[in-house]
Amino acid sequence: MLSKSQIKLITGLKQKKQRQQHGFFVVEGVKTIKELLQSHLELYALYTTETFNIDAKNEVLISEADLKRISFLTTPNTALAIFKIPAQKPIETKGLIVALDAVRDPGNLGTIIRLCDWFGVKNLVCSKETVDCFNPKVVQATMGSLTRVNINYVDLVAFLKTISLPVFGAFMEGENVYKSKLPEQGILVMGNEANGVSKEVEAIITEKISIPRFGDIQATESLNVATATAILLSEFRR
Amino acid sequence: MLSKSQIKLITGLKQKKQRQQHGFFVVEGVKTIKELLQSHLELYALYTTETFNIDAKNEVLISEADLKRISFLTTPNTALAIFKIPAQKPIETKGLIVALDAVRDPGNLGTIIRLCDWFGVKNLVCSKETVDCFNPKVVQATMGSLTRVNINYVDLVAFLKTISLPVFGAFMEGENVYKSKLPEQGILVMGNEANGVSKEVEAIITEKISIPRFGDIQATESLNVATATAILLSEFRR
Repeated sequence: MLSKSQIKLITGLKQKKQRQQHGFFVVEGVKTIKELLQSHLELYALYTTETFNIDAKNEVLISEADLKRISFLTTPNTALAIFKIPAQKPIETKGLIVALDAVRDPGNLGTIIRLCDWFGVKNLVCSKETVDCFNPKVVQATMGSLTRVNINYVDLVAFLKTISLPVFGAFMEGENVYKSKLPEQGILVMGNEANGVSKEVEAIITEKISIPRFGDIQATESLNVATATAILLSEFRR
Repeated sequence: MLSKSQIKLITGLKQKKQRQQHGFFVVEGVKTIKELLQSHLELYALYTTETFNIDAKNEVLISEADLKRISFLTTPNTALAIFKIPAQKPIETKGLIVALDAVRDPGNLGTIIRLCDWFGVKNLVCSKETVDCFNPKVVQATMGSLTRVNINYVDLVAFLKTISLPVFGAFMEGENVYKSKLPEQGILVMGNEANGVSKEVEAIITEKISIPRFGDIQATESLNVATATAILLSEFRR
């Protein structure tokens, strides 16, 4: 049986402020938890309705009713784990780096982290306005990739000014990406869902690229930031 | 002021059964509604807190409280429209066609419809197990692309057996898509989020392709179906 104060601590971790205060974040689902247990992350507590049969002193068997009380999901899985937020590792300014300028949607960030993992992008740099990568919806969407990508939150304009790699950004009027020469080292900047890349960041971008539209040219909609990232990373790596 | 029966009709359209019974679906958000008003779709009713200044006899000015009652969104926009579900147009079996084998997530289907629109794929063929394209979450995610892609729900195995185009499918063990010769005409089959392409459909696929992984080879996760579709359509079109 969970105490009231335990429940309060866990459910509070939905909020960024409380995650930062306590230094913990929540992971749900047996598959993702098992993947994270094999990573460098440190487990704080594991609440589960069925034992994991692992040597974890901090495993607590709980009832389905208790799991429902602490879960962030409408349909809870059978386990919820609390891990310690790891210390930020410095950004390695080599290879291909993805930078996000105020990406707000947790699902989009989660998908982009998975894409970085898939395409071997080791460093993801986020502006301070980008959604927190330990947000439960982001963690859920990353499916374990979170541990394999080094994520830093920085002053993006200041960071981009310090480095000497070419800086790519997606713009409607950019050069056709299928005809662009893409280097092995560089930074790919992706912008906010509604407003794209901010003026301050745009001023630092050295190479504007675009994904050509093949459909009805009258239509005004752009691609979603996560699908555009998928296509651009594929172009950098192919 | 909306009557109880009006509210019941509108909120009922969240369910596929009632959409099919009444032949209506719901669209929210001024931008998407305006885009759909310019399409071939027929408006049944427009409920809005601010007039659209259009010649629509079926425009009804309502209060914010009433909009909240009928909206499917946690944070309602300023308008909700009901359109008639158009009659299915026959599938044109030429050019590039995308086929979905039991894609269940509304966000994924919405993203794939947008991708078809972007890459000029005019025909999207869905198995009967695929989520309904008039589901409000799908409509929300398509951002107007819904009117520019011809979507049919069919017995997918039977359909694939009748046509003579090459049938491509994404499989982990498939040929590297970056090295494959991709034709201008063909069918690209994408599978279910958890189980991939079903055995019955797999038996009909003539070309298995894969997106190579560049990251840590130990990791087992695959790409999300919508991002994989983005990369594969980009490869077909580039």
